[in-house]
Amino acid sequence: MRASEDATIAAIREELGEAANSRIELGIGDDAALWQPSRSDRSAISTDAFLDGVHFRGDCTPLDRVGARAINASVSDLAAMGARPRLATVALGIPGESTLEDIRLLYRGIGRAAAELGIALAGGDCTASPVLSLTVTVLGEVRASHAKRRAGARIGDTIAVTGPLGASAAGLRALDEPGLLDEPLRQRAIDAYEIARARVPEGRWLSGSAHVHAMMDCSDGLGRDCARIAKASGVGILLERIPVAPEMAALARATGEDAEGLALAAGEDYELIVAIGSSAFAHLQARFRKRFGRALTAVGRCDAQAGVRWWRSGIATPVDRYGWDHFEVGRYDER
Amino acid sequence: MRASEDATIAAIREELGEAANSRIELGIGDDAALWQPSRSDRSAISTDAFLDGVHFRGDCTPLDRVGARAINASVSDLAAMGARPRLATVALGIPGESTLEDIRLLYRGIGRAAAELGIALAGGDCTASPVLSLTVTVLGEVRASHAKRRAGARIGDTIAVTGPLGASAAGLRALDEPGLLDEPLRQRAIDAYEIARARVPEGRWLSGSAHVHAMMDCSDGLGRDCARIAKASGVGILLERIPVAPEMAALARATGEDAEGLALAAGEDYELIVAIGSSAFAHLQARFRKRFGRALTAVGRCDAQAGVRWWRSGIATPVDRYGWDHFEVGRYDER
Repeated sequence: MRASEDATIAAIREELGEAANSRIELGIGDDAALWQPSRSDRSAISTDAFLDGVHFRGDCTPLDRVGARAINASVSDLAAMGARPRLATVALGIPGESTLEDIRLLYRGIGRAAAELGIALAGGDCTASPVLSLTVTVLGEVRASHAKRRAGARIGDTIAVTGPLGASAAGLRALDEPGLLDEPLRQRAIDAYEIARARVPEGRWLSGSAHVHAMMDCSDGLGRDCARIAKASGVGILLERIPVAPEMAALARATGEDAEGLALAAGEDYELIVAIGSSAFAHLQARFRKRFGRALTAVGRCDAQAGVRWWRSGIATPVDRYGWDHFEVGRYDER
Repeated sequence: MRASEDATIAAIREELGEAANSRIELGIGDDAALWQPSRSDRSAISTDAFLDGVHFRGDCTPLDRVGARAINASVSDLAAMGARPRLATVALGIPGESTLEDIRLLYRGIGRAAAELGIALAGGDCTASPVLSLTVTVLGEVRASHAKRRAGARIGDTIAVTGPLGASAAGLRALDEPGLLDEPLRQRAIDAYEIARARVPEGRWLSGSAHVHAMMDCSDGLGRDCARIAKASGVGILLERIPVAPEMAALARATGEDAEGLALAAGEDYELIVAIGSSAFAHLQARFRKRFGRALTAVGRCDAQAGVRWWRSGIATPVDRYGWDHFEVGRYDER
């Protein structure tokens, strides 16, 4: 990266245009960004880092997709609280080989995602780095009574997800093994991996129900993330059914692997995991389908046992050996 | 880094204790942190990245100092707005060779700085990384009428700084060249480099004056940062006097370099640069000394010329070739 910091920031501002700052009082270019927070809501903040080779594949994925995905994956944490995203900051680590055109392409995607989500880009930082990296901080707002935490799931609650699992993980595999899936399924899997979409409308809608007791986004795999809900809530979770995305089902057929097991461990689908009072579930499920045209799928229920278990062929097996851990760089954790 | 993400987060929570979260409703460990923003103030946000070898020297500087300095350097952007810091998030990039004890030491410093500044640690992220890095986002609050921007300096304004310049840069040089400075000056210089202090009380006090027209922190060198104020405000700045820190003065004596030139280019002192209506300057300066026991030093004035010039021996020379640019990794920019 031979361009100076000021030249890089000028290119970023040009790429984003005026729209990026229009929702706040003072945006990119001063010491800090300023805005008027909602007087009635709580503010919510979350930070996520994305490194080339760990969280994305800069060698395969176009950089505008990398940028848009980082914003959506970050906003997913706000969606999981039921919050309305309002602004983001992006700290960029730029390796020596990156060009100003690379940075423009990255910010084209960031700007597109911000526009789709209705958020301002309120600044950030640029620095030399051995590897391309984005650290995204997102800020949102939510009514105090609507904010859904991980803690709150109760014994007897139905655990549900807002969509099938494994499409993103199938896409990552498909990038590495070109013959694994036939078109157009292969491209759909790759799109699922490269184009994340934060479930903001779904999260806000679900947060409005008092029957939703806990919520989080499924970023590290259903098994691992259910373990976090279970631990925070002081309950156990028995998983009974794993909804497998068609892309992952086809991959498992092609390789002879266990589709449900892969979907349980697969991360980064960004569906929401929701604990719902069981008596209200059927009604909420019907309203969800009417509103969003897709299924809210029951995957299990909360009980008084310890940890997360998967009920399969009449046996309940602990699932704590499934999931995705970013310290295990770029591969599934199957210890 | 062999520890899992969950184990790392558990160690961080243990290191920070309960105090870190006590100022907000919901802190580390959920999808997002939650708090009640001030109903009367604006919110302010800023993000900065710190990489080993670029922004700090992990080979020389103890990691608790690295952590505390990253928090202070980030909060410095809020101080420059006149804002009161409220919370921070930290995204950590952890290389393979780091131990859990390294992370604990880093967070001991982060926690100490947060306690001193009165801010909550509201979460963050941990990920594998080729190099130790911290990306810090800080959020603060400021009355709308008090928020000071870079734009706002007027022709005739006095430009002043809240302290002498160059001690931090002298410390960085002293780390590399052990014989350059005698003790105790050498250790004082290294302390100035390793222990940054955000000028929060000074910034808040100055922001209360309507005679303060513009403010920013001096992180990239007086020359470069004055150029930013000048550009944002549509004025020129003529520098007339550079207050040199004793550590930098001693270094220049030892090497035969130009002390004022080094201090002009030196970054990361985190003093505030302030544009003040000239008729009010003397009074504000006297009150500042009474309040803080240190000098608010006039360094120049705003005029109608272009850019920043340095008046020396009867000649005004453009200073746009001085300053610090983080893309020029780890060395002074003297193009």
